Amino acid sequence: MRSYITGLECPKCKKKHDFRKLTNLCECGSPLLVRYDLDALSREVKPSDWQKRPEGLWRYRELLPVLDEKNIVSLGEGGTPVFPLEEMGKKYGLNKLLVKDEGMNPTGTFKARGASVGVSKAKELGAQTIAMPTAGNAGAAWAAYSARAGIKMIVAMPEDAPATTQAECVAYGADTYLVDGLISDAGRYVRQGVAKHGWFEAATLKEPYRIEGKKTMGLEIWEQLPHGLPAAIIYPTGGGVGLIGMWKAFLELKAMGWLKGELPKMVCVQAEGCAPIVRAYREGKDHAEFFQGAHTIAAGVRVPSALGDFLVLDAVRSSGGTALTVSDEEILETWKETAEKDGALICPEGAAAVKAAQLIRDMGLVGADDTVLVLNTGAGMKYTELMTGKAKKVTEPF
Amino acid sequence: MRSYITGLECPKCKKKHDFRKLTNLCECGSPLLVRYDLDALSREVKPSDWQKRPEGLWRYRELLPVLDEKNIVSLGEGGTPVFPLEEMGKKYGLNKLLVKDEGMNPTGTFKARGASVGVSKAKELGAQTIAMPTAGNAGAAWAAYSARAGIKMIVAMPEDAPATTQAECVAYGADTYLVDGLISDAGRYVRQGVAKHGWFEAATLKEPYRIEGKKTMGLEIWEQLPHGLPAAIIYPTGGGVGLIGMWKAFLELKAMGWLKGELPKMVCVQAEGCAPIVRAYREGKDHAEFFQGAHTIAAGVRVPSALGDFLVLDAVRSSGGTALTVSDEEILETWKETAEKDGALICPEGAAAVKAAQLIRDMGLVGADDTVLVLNTGAGMKYTELMTGKAKKVTEPF
Repeated sequence: MRSYITGLECPKCKKKHDFRKLTNLCECGSPLLVRYDLDALSREVKPSDWQKRPEGLWRYRELLPVLDEKNIVSLGEGGTPVFPLEEMGKKYGLNKLLVKDEGMNPTGTFKARGASVGVSKAKELGAQTIAMPTAGNAGAAWAAYSARAGIKMIVAMPEDAPATTQAECVAYGADTYLVDGLISDAGRYVRQGVAKHGWFEAATLKEPYRIEGKKTMGLEIWEQLPHGLPAAIIYPTGGGVGLIGMWKAFLELKAMGWLKGELPKMVCVQAEGCAPIVRAYREGKDHAEFFQGAHTIAAGVRVPSALGDFLVLDAVRSSGGTALTVSDEEILETWKETAEKDGALICPEGAAAVKAAQLIRDMGLVGADDTVLVLNTGAGMKYTELMTGKAKKVTEPF
Repeated sequence: MRSYITGLECPKCKKKHDFRKLTNLCECGSPLLVRYDLDALSREVKPSDWQKRPEGLWRYRELLPVLDEKNIVSLGEGGTPVFPLEEMGKKYGLNKLLVKDEGMNPTGTFKARGASVGVSKAKELGAQTIAMPTAGNAGAAWAAYSARAGIKMIVAMPEDAPATTQAECVAYGADTYLVDGLISDAGRYVRQGVAKHGWFEAATLKEPYRIEGKKTMGLEIWEQLPHGLPAAIIYPTGGGVGLIGMWKAFLELKAMGWLKGELPKMVCVQAEGCAPIVRAYREGKDHAEFFQGAHTIAAGVRVPSALGDFLVLDAVRSSGGTALTVSDEEILETWKETAEKDGALICPEGAAAVKAAQLIRDMGLVGADDTVLVLNTGAGMKYTELMTGKAKKVTEPF
C-alpha cells in the first residue's frame, strides 16, 4: 500500500513545491494543493479495494499524502453516517434531504479529518511543535492528534470560543491561549510565535495536508450514494476547507474515471453577521474582502477572512451552485426544530446548512425530488451554551 | 431480509412470552431475553452478508428483533472504531491494550445502540409514550430516537446528572424531570407514572430489546478482530446491559458455529463508592444487594441496584473474568493521562475501565501479550464539569 503523491502545486501561479519537507504557503501567498499520479492510481487500485477495508478515512490512503503507514495518527476518524432528515425535508418540500453527520468523529467534529491527515504528515516530516489559531473545534482536534503523536501543540482562540472546545484543548495538554478578539486576531499572535520560535504553523490552509483529510468527506459521499452524487451539497463555510476538499475529491475521482455523471452544485452558506465569501460571490469578485464587525452564534463560521476564498468561489461557480446567508435567529430555530422533529442534535453551523436547503429549494436551484445533502460539521452536544431549555424539578408524584 | 426472532424467554423460570406485544418483565420479576432461530440463521445467512452491508448495527438485522424494516429508527449508530491505547498499555505492561470508542455514536454514547433497537421495537409494537429513569446518557439517547420516531418521551434523572445530558433531553423535546436522589429514586417516580398513565416503561432491562442493541458491540468486536476475540473485555458496569449483551452475542455466534476458540474473560468494573455487583461477586452471591450511600463522579455507574445483576455475575464467572473497583481519584487521574498520552478524551466510566486493565494485568489475569479490550462508553467532551484545567489569557506577544 503506497501513496501516489507526486508533489505540491500552487493553484494560482502553478509553481511546483517539494513535498518531502515541511511547507506552508507558496511565495505568491497562495495555499498549496497536493497532486497525485491519478493515472497510475486508477490503473493499479480499484474502488472495491477501498470498500473492502474497514471504514474510516485511511481506507483511501493511496489518495492521501502519508508515505509510511507507521506515521498514521488515527483515533478512528471518518466513516460517518448519512441519514435522512425526513421531517425537515417535508417542511421544505424536499423528498430527499440527507445529512452527513460529522459529529460522529473523534473530538465530535469534522475537524478530526484534517487533524488526522495534517498531524500524520507533520509527524512524517519531523515537526516538533505545531501552532494554530482556531475558532475552537480545529484546536481541539489538532490538540488530540498532536497529543497522540507526541508533538507539542500551541492553540490560540477567541476568549468567547465555545467553553467545551477550550476545555478539550487543555485536557489534551495543549498550551491553550485566549485572545480578546476574533480568530483573525488569534492568528496574529500565532504568526508572532511562529516567527520567533520556529513552530510549524497549521492555521487553515497554511499547510497543504488538512485539505486532504477534509476531502475524504467527498470520497465517502461518493461511496455512500452509489446511485449518483447529490444534486446539491450544502456546506457551512468558515475557512472553507471542507468545500474545497470535497470539490477536489470529485475532480480527482472524475479524472480517474471513477465518477460518472453530473457533479453536485456546491452551496456555500455563511451567517448574516459574517459573510465575506457570500458578499464576494454576489459582487462577482474572485477574492473576498475582510468582513468588518463579524458576529454570529455559529463560532465555526465566524471567520472574517479566508485564505482559500478564491478556491471556494471557484468551486461554487464552476459547479453551478450558490452562496447565501442565514440569520442567527434562523440558525437557532432550525437547530431546535431538527432535534425535536428528526432527533438530530446538530451544531449551529449544521443548522445554518439545513436552513439553506429550504432557501435553495425556494429559489428553484433544486427540485422536490433532487437529493440535497447537508454537512453537519459537529455534534450539537458541544454547544451547551445554546441549550437554554431547562428540566423541571419533580415536586409531586407523576 | 428478515428477523429470525422466535420468542422471549425468562432466564430464571424459563417461561416463554409472546414477542408480538409490548412486554416488560416476567411474572417472576426477571428481565426477558430475546431468542432466535439460530440454526436457520446460520444456514441461510453468511458472515460475509453482514460485512458487505454499510457499517452500523442494523447490518446484523437478522439477529435483531425488528420484523419490518420500515420501523427501524436510525441515526447512524454503531460501527464504532477500535484503536490502541499504546502509551497507557506501555505503562501497564500490556502490549495490546485496545479501546472500542463508543463516544462516536449519536448522542455521544453507547446508549444509542439500545435506544435505536428499543425505540424501533416499541414503535413496531405501537407504544405511544415511553418513560424511563436515567443516570443521564440513556435518557438523552432515548429522547433522540423517540423524537425521531414521533413517540412521546418522559425522562426522570438525578438533579446532579451531567448538565449536558439534561440539556440534551430538553433539546429533543422530552418531558424532563429532575429528582432529588439517585437513579433508583427517579425509578420510583417513573413507576408511579407508568401505573397511573399507562406509559410504556423502558427502564434498564424492564423491556427486552435494549439488550439486543447493546449486544451489537459484541458482534462488532468479533468482526473487528478477525484473528480472535480479546483475552479480556473490560466493561464499566452500572445496569450491566452492555456486558450481558456482549456475552449473549458471543454465545449466539458460538451456537451458530461462527465463533471458534476461547471466549473472552468478562471483567466488570465499578466505582469504590457504588459497587453492588463487585460485592456480590466477592461474597460468592448470585444476586447483589442495594448499595447504600452510593456516590461516584462516574454518573453512569452510580447504580445502587441492577435488575440484571445475576446475569452480569453469571457472565463474569462462567467466562473466568472478575469484578473489581477503582476509586474516583484513580478515575480522574486515568482520564487525564489517557487524553494527554494517547489523545483519547474518554468518559469517566471509560477511565475506570482503562484503570482496571492495569489491575487485571497486575493480578495476573492476563499476560503482557494478551489482547485486552476496554469499552469507552461515551465521549469525554460531555463531561465539561470534570475538565478543571483552564486556558491562559494572552497578555503579550508569544
